[in-house]
Amino acid sequence: MSAKITILGYNSAIPTVSGIPTSQYLEMNERHFLIDCGEGTQVQLRRARVKFSKINHIFISHLHGDHCFGLPGLISSFRLLGREAPLHIYGPKGIAEMLETIFRITDSHREFNVIYHELSSKQSELIYEDHKLTVHTIPLNHRIYANGYLFREKQGLRHLNMEEIKKYPEIEVCDYHKLKKGEDFLLSDGYLLKNEVLTTPAEKGKSYAFCSDTRFKPDIVPIIKGVDVLYHEATFLHDLKEMADYTGHTTAMEAALIAKEAEAGKLILGHFSNRYSDLSVFLDETRPIFPNTFLPEALKEVEI
Amino acid sequence: MSAKITILGYNSAIPTVSGIPTSQYLEMNERHFLIDCGEGTQVQLRRARVKFSKINHIFISHLHGDHCFGLPGLISSFRLLGREAPLHIYGPKGIAEMLETIFRITDSHREFNVIYHELSSKQSELIYEDHKLTVHTIPLNHRIYANGYLFREKQGLRHLNMEEIKKYPEIEVCDYHKLKKGEDFLLSDGYLLKNEVLTTPAEKGKSYAFCSDTRFKPDIVPIIKGVDVLYHEATFLHDLKEMADYTGHTTAMEAALIAKEAEAGKLILGHFSNRYSDLSVFLDETRPIFPNTFLPEALKEVEI
Repeated sequence: MSAKITILGYNSAIPTVSGIPTSQYLEMNERHFLIDCGEGTQVQLRRARVKFSKINHIFISHLHGDHCFGLPGLISSFRLLGREAPLHIYGPKGIAEMLETIFRITDSHREFNVIYHELSSKQSELIYEDHKLTVHTIPLNHRIYANGYLFREKQGLRHLNMEEIKKYPEIEVCDYHKLKKGEDFLLSDGYLLKNEVLTTPAEKGKSYAFCSDTRFKPDIVPIIKGVDVLYHEATFLHDLKEMADYTGHTTAMEAALIAKEAEAGKLILGHFSNRYSDLSVFLDETRPIFPNTFLPEALKEVEI
Repeated sequence: MSAKITILGYNSAIPTVSGIPTSQYLEMNERHFLIDCGEGTQVQLRRARVKFSKINHIFISHLHGDHCFGLPGLISSFRLLGREAPLHIYGPKGIAEMLETIFRITDSHREFNVIYHELSSKQSELIYEDHKLTVHTIPLNHRIYANGYLFREKQGLRHLNMEEIKKYPEIEVCDYHKLKKGEDFLLSDGYLLKNEVLTTPAEKGKSYAFCSDTRFKPDIVPIIKGVDVLYHEATFLHDLKEMADYTGHTTAMEAALIAKEAEAGKLILGHFSNRYSDLSVFLDETRPIFPNTFLPEALKEVEI
C-alpha cells in the first residue's frame, strides 16, 4: 500500500509566473488521480514527469475557472497523444455541458470516451470504488456548489501468524486466504479457533482529504476523521475572517481547527490570497493549534 | 509611428515546459492587440511585462484549442483585476457561444462588456478601423474556418515644405493642416498650387500580417503585398508536403514562396510540428528562397 500526493499548483484565482492555480496529482495504490485542473496543469504534469496516459479519473471540486480552466487543454492533449482509454470526470452538474460545448465548437473529435459523473448532492456520497480504494465527496460551502474529496485505501488482508498456525496441522495452505480475510477456523473436534489467534491485523489503509474552496465548515470533521493527510484551503489569515466569509473561504486558524478536530495526521495549506507574499505567517497562525501543519511545495511528492 | 510584435508562444498543438501554443502581442501606434490566445498566454503576457488593462482587442484566427484555450482564464483575470473597459473579441462564429457558456457555468459575472465580432466571410474584410490603423482579415484554408489578420498603419500626414510655402504669403498657418492632408492651394489670382510642390510625402505606415493555421494559399499574396513583417506558419518541411496538406498546414518552402511573392520585408516562421527538435532546418529550407527569414523567439520584442 502506498500513497503519494504531488501538488501541481496552489495559487488562488490567477496563474502567475511562479505558479498555477489549484491542481494536484494523487497516486494511491496504483491508481492515478488528478484533483482540480487550473490553467497550466498539463505543463505542471509534464514537469512532474507524470505519464498522461495513467490518468483515468479527474475530480473537480467546483466550476470556478481557477479549478477547471486547464481541462479543455489537457483533454485535447490526451486526444493528440492518441489516448483510447475512457476518461472519467467527476464534478458539479454543468461540467459536461461546458466541456462538450467547448469540444463541439473547437471541432475536437475524440477517439476515447469521456464519462461524466455529475454531482449535485449536498450529502457525502461514495462516488468511486474498486477493490483497493474508495472516493467520497466532502460537501463544501463556497459561493457555488463545491465538493472536497476523500480518498481512502481499503484495509488490506490480515497477516498470517505462522507460529500459531503451525500448531494445527489441520490448517492447510488452501485455508490461508480465508484466514487473511478474517475468518475463524473450525477444527474437526468442533473447537472454533478465533481469527485473532491465527493472524495479525492488516495495515490501516492510507487516506487523503482535499478540501478547497470552502467557508469554515466544521461538519466535515466526521467525514474526514482520522485522515492521514488533509489539504485544506486557507485563503486568508484570521484577521480577515469577515472577508473569508464574504468570499466563501477559510482562514488559516479555521483550517487548523478542522485538522485538530478531525485528528488528521498532517495538514497542508494552500489557495492563499495574493495579498500575502511571505507565507510563513500562515504557519505562525496554524501551528499553535495544529503543529503538524505545512506549506505546499509545488511539484514535491509527499508520502501519505 | 511605431510597431512592435512580441511572440508569446509558437508551439503547435500542445503547451510544453519550454513554450506555449500560438499567441502574439502587437503594439502598433499606441494600440495594443492580442493575436490568438493558447493556454498559458496570460502568464506569458506577465513575463513580457504587458499591462493587462492595455489590451482592448483580441483577434482569434480559428477555434482550435491551441489558439484559444487561454481566453477563459485571461478574461477571468481581467475581471479579477477590476477591468471596466469593454473588450472586443474578433474570431470565428461560435466563439461567443463557447465563451458565454463557459462564463455562465463558471459563474463569472463581469463588470465589463465583451463585444464579440464574429466572422464567417470567406473574403478579406475590414474589421477594425480607427484614425491610425486598419485591420483586415486574411482568409485562410485550414481544417476549420480560419483567418489571418493584416494590421496596417494609415499613412500619416504629409510634411510641409516650408521653403516653398514661404514663397506664397497668401498661405497662412491655418491652411497648413489642409496641405498636410494633401490638398492643393488656390491662389487669389486663380493659379492652383499643386500639393506636391508644397509638401513632401508622409512616411509609409507600418504593416504586419499574421497567417496561422493554413494550407499553402497563394491567393493571400495580393492582400498582404508589401507587408513589412509576415508571420507565417510552417508546420512541416517540404518533404512532408502531403502531411501538411492533409492536416491543413504549410511547409517552410511554401511559407518562403508566399513571403517572396508578397515582397514582404521579413518573414518569421512558427507553429512547428513537435517532430522537429533542431529548428535551424526551417531556415535551411526557406532562406534560399527568401533570405530574410527568421525563427521566432518567445518574448523578444521585434521592431516592425
